Amino acid sequence: MVGTPQDIKEITIAFDVMGSDHGPEEVVRGAAQLSLEAPHIHALLVGDRDAIDGVLAETKHRAERISVQHASEFIAMDEKPGEALARKKNASVGVAAQLVADGEAHALVSAGNTGACVLACARSFQLIPGVRRAALAAVYPTRGTRGEKEDPFSLILDVGATVEATAEDLVTFAVMGSAYARIISRNERPKVALLSNGVEPQKGPPRVVEAHARLSTMPGVNFVGNVEGVDIPKGTVDVIVTDGFMGNVCLKMLEGVHDTVVELAQYAYKEKLRWRAGLAMLSSGIQRIKDITDWEQYGGAPVLGFDRIFIKAHGRSKARAITNAGKVAAKAVAHQLGTAIQEGLPR
Amino acid sequence: MVGTPQDIKEITIAFDVMGSDHGPEEVVRGAAQLSLEAPHIHALLVGDRDAIDGVLAETKHRAERISVQHASEFIAMDEKPGEALARKKNASVGVAAQLVADGEAHALVSAGNTGACVLACARSFQLIPGVRRAALAAVYPTRGTRGEKEDPFSLILDVGATVEATAEDLVTFAVMGSAYARIISRNERPKVALLSNGVEPQKGPPRVVEAHARLSTMPGVNFVGNVEGVDIPKGTVDVIVTDGFMGNVCLKMLEGVHDTVVELAQYAYKEKLRWRAGLAMLSSGIQRIKDITDWEQYGGAPVLGFDRIFIKAHGRSKARAITNAGKVAAKAVAHQLGTAIQEGLPR
Repeated sequence: MVGTPQDIKEITIAFDVMGSDHGPEEVVRGAAQLSLEAPHIHALLVGDRDAIDGVLAETKHRAERISVQHASEFIAMDEKPGEALARKKNASVGVAAQLVADGEAHALVSAGNTGACVLACARSFQLIPGVRRAALAAVYPTRGTRGEKEDPFSLILDVGATVEATAEDLVTFAVMGSAYARIISRNERPKVALLSNGVEPQKGPPRVVEAHARLSTMPGVNFVGNVEGVDIPKGTVDVIVTDGFMGNVCLKMLEGVHDTVVELAQYAYKEKLRWRAGLAMLSSGIQRIKDITDWEQYGGAPVLGFDRIFIKAHGRSKARAITNAGKVAAKAVAHQLGTAIQEGLPR
Repeated sequence: MVGTPQDIKEITIAFDVMGSDHGPEEVVRGAAQLSLEAPHIHALLVGDRDAIDGVLAETKHRAERISVQHASEFIAMDEKPGEALARKKNASVGVAAQLVADGEAHALVSAGNTGACVLACARSFQLIPGVRRAALAAVYPTRGTRGEKEDPFSLILDVGATVEATAEDLVTFAVMGSAYARIISRNERPKVALLSNGVEPQKGPPRVVEAHARLSTMPGVNFVGNVEGVDIPKGTVDVIVTDGFMGNVCLKMLEGVHDTVVELAQYAYKEKLRWRAGLAMLSSGIQRIKDITDWEQYGGAPVLGFDRIFIKAHGRSKARAITNAGKVAAKAVAHQLGTAIQEGLPR
C-alpha cells in the first residue's frame, strides 16, 4: 500500500507494457531508463512476464526500482474497447488500472488502445467529487512559447472522452486543464480559452455561450474568452477548452497537416536533386514546420477528472517518450493534481 | 426582368462593389476583366456611382456588358451585420440582393462582411422548398486531385451560417454540396462524407449518427461514410458535411496553419543567407505547402439553400478572384443549381 500524497517519498508508476504499436519492448526500455534517471520513481511493469524479463535482461536498469506484475492478456489497437475489456479479464491495462485503484501504484501510464485505457480508468477509478465527465487532454506544440520553461506547448481538451459536453462540463474541463498546465508546465497563471466561431461572448452554440458567462466570473481560472480555429496552431493561449467531438477533429486535422509536410519532404528527397540540396540547407526550417505540426513529439496526454492519475502515451511512442510520460505522471502525483482540480471547481 | 433559367442567353451577375478589404477598386476591376472574357455575362455593379465610374474610366472593359446601380451606403467588415443592415437601408449588399430577388440579376457576388451578406440573402431570397437552413460552403485546396479538371479542391459546409445543425440539416447540406460539386467542378459522382470523430457509423453525437443512417439509404448522393479531421487537408473526399460551428473552427485552423508556413518563409528570407539559397531552390516546394494550406486562393464560397445564387468572395480578393467568382456564379445559374438541389432532396 502506497502512502497518501502528502508524505510520498517514493512514487510508484504502473506501466501497461502491452498493446502499443511497438509491443512491450519500447515501454520496458523506457521504464528501464526511468529507473536510471529518477531515484524517487518505482516502475511497476504490468504485462507478459517472459516478454518483460527478456527485454530487461538486455537493457541497463536499476533492478531495485522495477517490479513486474504478470498479466496474461492484452488489448490490441484494433479491438473494440468495450467488448475486449469485458472478455479479457486479465488484460494488462485493466490489471494495471486496478492495481492503481487498489493503492499498489500512484499512477498509470499506457501506450495502448486509447478507448480501452479510458474505459479501464472509468471502471476502476472514481470521478473526483464535482466532476461529471472525464476529459482526455492533448499536449501539442505551437508557434509561441510560454511558462517558466518556455515550452512551446498548448493543451487542448477534451479530445475524445466526452463527445457531447454541457456548459458545466466545459467549465470543469477549464478548471482541470488549468490545474494541469500549472503543475506540469509550471505556468503560474495559464491562459484558458473556449474554442468558438468568434471571439465575442455570444458566439457559438448555447453550451459555449453559457460556459463563457460562468468562466468569466470564476476567480481561480485565468479565462481570456473565446479563441478561434486560427489560434490553435498559433498557440495564442495555454489551455483550449472544447467538447470531445470538436477536439478530436481538430487534433486529427493537425496530424493531417503534419502528414502533408512529411510527404512533401519525402517527395523532395526522392525526386529532385535540386530540391535535395535546398532541403539540406533548409533542414532546420523544415524541422521547425514539422515541430509545429507534430503533435506526437510530446508523448503524454492526461486523462483528467479521475481520482487517480493516468497518462496516455502515443501508440507509436519510443522509449524516450515513455520515460517522459513516467516523469510527468510522477510530477502530477507529487503535486497532487487531483486535489488541485477539486479545489478549483465551482462550489 | 431576366428570363427563366431554361432560356438564358445572357446571365446578369450583380456585384456588391463596396465593403471588401480593398474597397471598390478590385471588385470593379474584376468585373471589368469579366466583361472582356465572358460575352454571355452582364455585370451589374452596385455601389457608389462616382467611385465605380472612376475605376472604370481607368480600366479596360466592354461598356455594353456593364451597368451601374447607385447605392449610397455600405457595410464595413467590422460592423455588426444585423444592426448595420437594419440601419443602412441603402447598403450596397442589401440593394444588390434585392435586385437579384426582383429578377434584375440572376446571382449575387460580394467580397464584403460575410454575416451581412448571409443576412441580406436571408432577407431578400426564399429558401428552396425542403431546405430548412442555408449553408455557407468553403472551397479549399487539398493534397489530392479529382474530377474532370483534376482540380485539387474540396468543399466543406457549413462553415458558419448554421451554428447548430440537425440530422435533417446535415442531410440537406450533403445534397446541396453534392449538387454544387457536380455542377461547378464537373465531378459526376462527388464523394460526400460526414465529419466525425471516427469512421464507424455509430461515431459522433446523435445528429451525426442519424444523418449517417439517412444518407446511407439515399441513392442520389455518393455517400462514403464518415471522415476524420486528418482527411480535411488530405482531401480524401469531395464534399465534407458538418455544422457551422465545427466547419468554422476547421476552416480557421487551416488559415492558422497557412499563416505559420508564411511566417516561416518570411523569417527565412530575412534572417539567414543559407536559408535564402535553400528557399530559392525549394520555392516550388514551399509554394506547394502554401497552396495546400491557402484556403484563400480559391475566391468563391457559395451560400447554398436559397432560390437565388450567391457567391461570397474572400474579403481580401484581388480582381482575378472576383472575375472567377463571377464565372462560378454564372455557371451555377446556367446549370440551374437551385433545381438540382431541389431534385436531390429527400421526399
